Amino acid sequence: MNSLGVGLVGTGFMGKCHALAYGSVKAVFGDVPDIRLEVLCDVPSDKADSFANQFGFARGTADWRDLVADPNVDIVCITTPNKVHKEMALAALAAGKHVHLEKPMALTLEDAKALLTVAEGSGARTIVGYNYLHNPAIGHARKLIADGAIGRVVHFRGMVDEDYQADPELAWTWRATKADAGLGTLGDLGCHLISLAAALVGPIESLVAETKTVHATRPVGEGSSERREVENEDIASALLTFENGVHGVVSTSRSAWGRKSYIGFEVHGTEGMITFDQERMNELRLYQNRGPLAEQGFKTLLSGPAHPPYGQFVPAAGHQLGFNDLKVIEVHELLRSIVEDRQAIPSFKDALHFEAVIHAIAKSGETGSRVQISTL
Amino acid sequence: MNSLGVGLVGTGFMGKCHALAYGSVKAVFGDVPDIRLEVLCDVPSDKADSFANQFGFARGTADWRDLVADPNVDIVCITTPNKVHKEMALAALAAGKHVHLEKPMALTLEDAKALLTVAEGSGARTIVGYNYLHNPAIGHARKLIADGAIGRVVHFRGMVDEDYQADPELAWTWRATKADAGLGTLGDLGCHLISLAAALVGPIESLVAETKTVHATRPVGEGSSERREVENEDIASALLTFENGVHGVVSTSRSAWGRKSYIGFEVHGTEGMITFDQERMNELRLYQNRGPLAEQGFKTLLSGPAHPPYGQFVPAAGHQLGFNDLKVIEVHELLRSIVEDRQAIPSFKDALHFEAVIHAIAKSGETGSRVQISTL
Amino acid sequence: MNSLGVGLVGTGFMGKCHALAYGSVKAVFGDVPDIRLEVLCDVPSDKADSFANQFGFARGTADWRDLVADPNVDIVCITTPNKVHKEMALAALAAGKHVHLEKPMALTLEDAKALLTVAEGSGARTIVGYNYLHNPAIGHARKLIADGAIGRVVHFRGMVDEDYQADPELAWTWRATKADAGLGTLGDLGCHLISLAAALVGPIESLVAETKTVHATRPVGEGSSERREVENEDIASALLTFENGVHGVVSTSRSAWGRKSYIGFEVHGTEGMITFDQERMNELRLYQNRGPLAEQGFKTLLSGPAHPPYGQFVPAAGHQLGFNDLKVIEVHELLRSIVEDRQAIPSFKDALHFEAVIHAIAKSGETGSRVQISTL
Amino acid sequence: MNSLGVGLVGTGFMGKCHALAYGSVKAVFGDVPDIRLEVLCDVPSDKADSFANQFGFARGTADWRDLVADPNVDIVCITTPNKVHKEMALAALAAGKHVHLEKPMALTLEDAKALLTVAEGSGARTIVGYNYLHNPAIGHARKLIADGAIGRVVHFRGMVDEDYQADPELAWTWRATKADAGLGTLGDLGCHLISLAAALVGPIESLVAETKTVHATRPVGEGSSERREVENEDIASALLTFENGVHGVVSTSRSAWGRKSYIGFEVHGTEGMITFDQERMNELRLYQNRGPLAEQGFKTLLSGPAHPPYGQFVPAAGHQLGFNDLKVIEVHELLRSIVEDRQAIPSFKDALHFEAVIHAIAKSGETGSRVQISTL
Repeated sequence: MNSLGVGLVGTGFMGKCHALAYGSVKAVFGDVPDIRLEVLCDVPSDKADSFANQFGFARGTADWRDLVADPNVDIVCITTPNKVHKEMALAALAAGKHVHLEKPMALTLEDAKALLTVAEGSGARTIVGYNYLHNPAIGHARKLIADGAIGRVVHFRGMVDEDYQADPELAWTWRATKADAGLGTLGDLGCHLISLAAALVGPIESLVAETKTVHATRPVGEGSSERREVENEDIASALLTFENGVHGVVSTSRSAWGRKSYIGFEVHGTEGMITFDQERMNELRLYQNRGPLAEQGFKTLLSGPAHPPYGQFVPAAGHQLGFNDLKVIEVHELLRSIVEDRQAIPSFKDALHFEAVIHAIAKSGETGSRVQISTL
Repeated sequence: MNSLGVGLVGTGFMGKCHALAYGSVKAVFGDVPDIRLEVLCDVPSDKADSFANQFGFARGTADWRDLVADPNVDIVCITTPNKVHKEMALAALAAGKHVHLEKPMALTLEDAKALLTVAEGSGARTIVGYNYLHNPAIGHARKLIADGAIGRVVHFRGMVDEDYQADPELAWTWRATKADAGLGTLGDLGCHLISLAAALVGPIESLVAETKTVHATRPVGEGSSERREVENEDIASALLTFENGVHGVVSTSRSAWGRKSYIGFEVHGTEGMITFDQERMNELRLYQNRGPLAEQGFKTLLSGPAHPPYGQFVPAAGHQLGFNDLKVIEVHELLRSIVEDRQAIPSFKDALHFEAVIHAIAKSGETGSRVQISTL
Repeated sequence: MNSLGVGLVGTGFMGKCHALAYGSVKAVFGDVPDIRLEVLCDVPSDKADSFANQFGFARGTADWRDLVADPNVDIVCITTPNKVHKEMALAALAAGKHVHLEKPMALTLEDAKALLTVAEGSGARTIVGYNYLHNPAIGHARKLIADGAIGRVVHFRGMVDEDYQADPELAWTWRATKADAGLGTLGDLGCHLISLAAALVGPIESLVAETKTVHATRPVGEGSSERREVENEDIASALLTFENGVHGVVSTSRSAWGRKSYIGFEVHGTEGMITFDQERMNELRLYQNRGPLAEQGFKTLLSGPAHPPYGQFVPAAGHQLGFNDLKVIEVHELLRSIVEDRQAIPSFKDALHFEAVIHAIAKSGETGSRVQISTL
Repeated sequence: MNSLGVGLVGTGFMGKCHALAYGSVKAVFGDVPDIRLEVLCDVPSDKADSFANQFGFARGTADWRDLVADPNVDIVCITTPNKVHKEMALAALAAGKHVHLEKPMALTLEDAKALLTVAEGSGARTIVGYNYLHNPAIGHARKLIADGAIGRVVHFRGMVDEDYQADPELAWTWRATKADAGLGTLGDLGCHLISLAAALVGPIESLVAETKTVHATRPVGEGSSERREVENEDIASALLTFENGVHGVVSTSRSAWGRKSYIGFEVHGTEGMITFDQERMNELRLYQNRGPLAEQGFKTLLSGPAHPPYGQFVPAAGHQLGFNDLKVIEVHELLRSIVEDRQAIPSFKDALHFEAVIHAIAKSGETGSRVQISTL
């Protein structure tokens, strides 16, 4: 395999992030095929052309089916609004492409399951954009846990918050609808936390949850006196039971003033604890019950080359990776999975579990009852 | 009222803390009657005498009923193991004394209710040792919320952790029994968090919870191969619904390595957020959605004379209060309630709510069902 | 020795702090003689009487010579404005009393030297109020260094800042004069940092410095248009050479907005680093170049019973000591030095070195030349 | 101008960083010409070819003069060891190229001056790799100061530390020689701090300094018993006087265990303070003496789109930029300076001041005397 062609649908937040990642992954890692940026899709077509020029794609198109059909395209990246993820992914799989899909896989768990079924019947490599999993600090946390650095895991706590829906007078948008957005904070943010919980502690078995729409209506436009209902949750919290019997607590809010990209967790073990916060994404804190009591304390591990693949970006510790670098690592994982003919992490299959959990939280929030997680 | 005599039962952690507080409250605040340290009770009697000498009490006794009966004693302070709180408090009330009781009021909610009933029928002033409520930083948080600094409260999260039961090989003690200790981490730590939650957001209406004994057995003695069952919970977590409709999440662990006195919370509002952590008890963090976006951020408010009664201890900001200072403020509150003939905060009545909540958490942890809080 | 009588001059910030410390030291530590609070001095006499009542002293007086002459007084505590420190201390020594003197010893180095000469010729025990030295975290830092935890010390940096003179329009006071206040920020704050530098690294041999009066004049009264000259420095910085050859950098400002009690330092060693900041006085940070690189990082040591004498105050780690607790430890040190008939730390002799350094900084700031430290 | 061709000399730490930056600058910013990655130079030639392939350059070469002479190359980027910076830059200028030079400009101040003279006589745009200047947080700090957010600046303090030479037994390399490396920590790290000091406070007029080689000799090879002299400084500290009369203190160490990329500073003003630390490069801390005292405190400003050009990378605040992103901003500045036909910041002229200061520190460290800064 000498090179791989990329078709990217979307030019927004995630679209640009993907474009940058595919544009630099070879330079950063070296051990991947050459990447050809072939087709960029957005509407209208002059927007697509303009961004194709800026991002370095060979051509733009306003027709995503044209992109999917292009024989030069080997990997289809989907960064469009959630509502169309499933349809595009199915088309890409049908065309024999590898699929790099932004989370969530679909608006409903049923659609996500259907998508997985098709993917598993194809020869395609798939990955879903749970990019925080690729932080070297998270990788090191996983290694520490696997190596027994904190003993047996006994408890997990996590929070994921932003404040983009904190203002009660912010105008109503499609994000407030079940039809177009599906879940609220759970779909935007909560699923990222679940991806970390599962990676660090293991699969989740059941949960009981509460959800809340703290801003029940919003003005139809900025400053309007007419208001429209918000259909999905602003805040959700859950008590988790992992398959290994460990308990956990998670909470997420899109209405948390001051939190810009807060994804914090604690993993409690029988011999220590690990904590992390994405707003300081280059720091992992580790406590171990070792050595003299007077010298025990939480140690701040500043990411560096000792935490792969940090060193691919900067050979000196403490210099800091950024958010966009996580996507480069994600792209690298997909490319290596193609080269090595193995599943990428997280594949559609992995992602289905994360999404099953957030849908279970939403369901328990409605019913008040415990919900078993099932991806069957 | 020229002076008040104090009888203190117990000389351990809280006993010493009370002795120091009663010994310095007049010097710190000025606006209270003279305090006479009259009787100190512990067993055996030479221990009582020795500590009476060290702590400056007029005499020691090994008989707490002797202390309660002493006509020179106006206030009975009870810092004994939880199991005997109720009996001693009832005796002190019967003898016409004011009662300063360490938390929890009793091992069971029924006993706590019974105690309250007696107290309300007496002319006594009562206070329970929920000392974290008296931190000037907490007082300022309450003031900020009351003044609308963060708008309407929409969410609460809190955690309270220590690591005194984190070591799986720590020997079994009476702390592990329902008969002697009652609840586990909920009684030791969880109740403090609930006191803060209620003070900041209001009374709690119902909850659903999970509890877990992560170390199911412990060696009967250090290094022993024989093990005995741990009967109460190491970890508890709950989803709260406050009476005002706000949702909350709380979690507590006595098995959290690295946490020494962690009591952290977040109060989310429609216009800002307040966060706090007792391990940095002189800092309150405040975010407000005001002014230019480029200058919005969490502000760290370092306690100072602008946060009463800090200035009674030190006239300069940032110099730091310590844990023992909180008990001085608590004692001041009791003394002022006596002088002003009003209820102290938190009185037995206030405390009963906090304890009703932790018992509800334990119950929900057992049954898996939602529990309504009732103190009737 | 069954008991010791205390005479305290001054009822302000430090006066109250001393009163609280002498009032509680026996209860906290146990291993000291009983303390009799005998005489409290302030002017006018009704103020003295009122505070004597509040602080628990047997009597008040407006005449400090009366206090010094009182045969019931064994220890004279001097917490008056700096200008009269020397005269009072000399009188107390002449009367055969032990002397607990707030820093600085005197306005000029010559006066401090004269005072030391008299003290050394007496049988008195002396201590100077460099209270930050008594923080358990500082004690632990000294122990770590002595034990080689960071190898050989190679560098020191420190800062001490407050903002009580940061406002350019704050009214002129006696603090601005050389005659009444002597040095500016160096005398108020800088000397504390030097006490830590010397304790951690050793005596200082020479230095070169810069000083600056950033607010050259101040209104004679609040809001006045008339302004008066500020005669002493707002900011001072120096490059130090310690006697052991280590270099250091120190800086101090009384005009540093936001700093309330900032005393921060770094001690760099060949195998690690220690850092500290008094605004988080219960935390010591330690880096050691040990173990796998991926697990190296700054560790936060939260003060606890493993850091004596923390456990005398609270038997559980992380609960936090406060500023006033440091004075209790200082008083304990003086009392133990009396009981054991040894020099207290820091005695007048130790303090003279600290004060020689700040006067040298002031002198180098004026002349621009290197100044050798000499206390001869 | 439709496109610009880049020739890059060096493939190490900074070489890769430049390659990534030129490869993504168009995608990130849009408003620059197309970038052609033309020639990559390293030795031997197969290494050059291999990296040319990885980094996306059209060809590799082992001959930097060949690169400089290539008519397709418009911009020559120099990321080689310091020793050859001057020679290469002169050749590039002679060939009519724009020059992107890693710091420092040259080993000696005389060479740097000579280089500036040639550059100023050319039509070339120049920029020197003082990349920390381009951090949006730093840009915001400059804006805040310019807008008077902290009043008039009265004091500056800064530190810059790493630990790459902290181990006393690390083998001797060319870095230890004056002939090949020139200055020690001043050239590697100190100059970055000076670039920030000058940007935030203004040009520096004079200084007095101390320098120290804490590890006087090093083993000639790992584990060797033969040792060789270290000729340049490990630690340097200086007292600065800025042209506007403000005083400052700076210190730098390459032997500071635990510091990985620490560049910290404080800017004290008459109405507030700004602090920063590169190890948390997305946070700026601001204190303002505004509003009620009880609500004053240091505010942490988490970088976001309100701090341009952060939004070019990520449209959501708090997501974090990384070290490599700073180089993209630097490249953008050079490209815009070419497009707009103006000086870039920092040009050779700006950089000469920074380097004059570090050479002055070294000189004062040798002579012990005050040194005036001059770039004439």
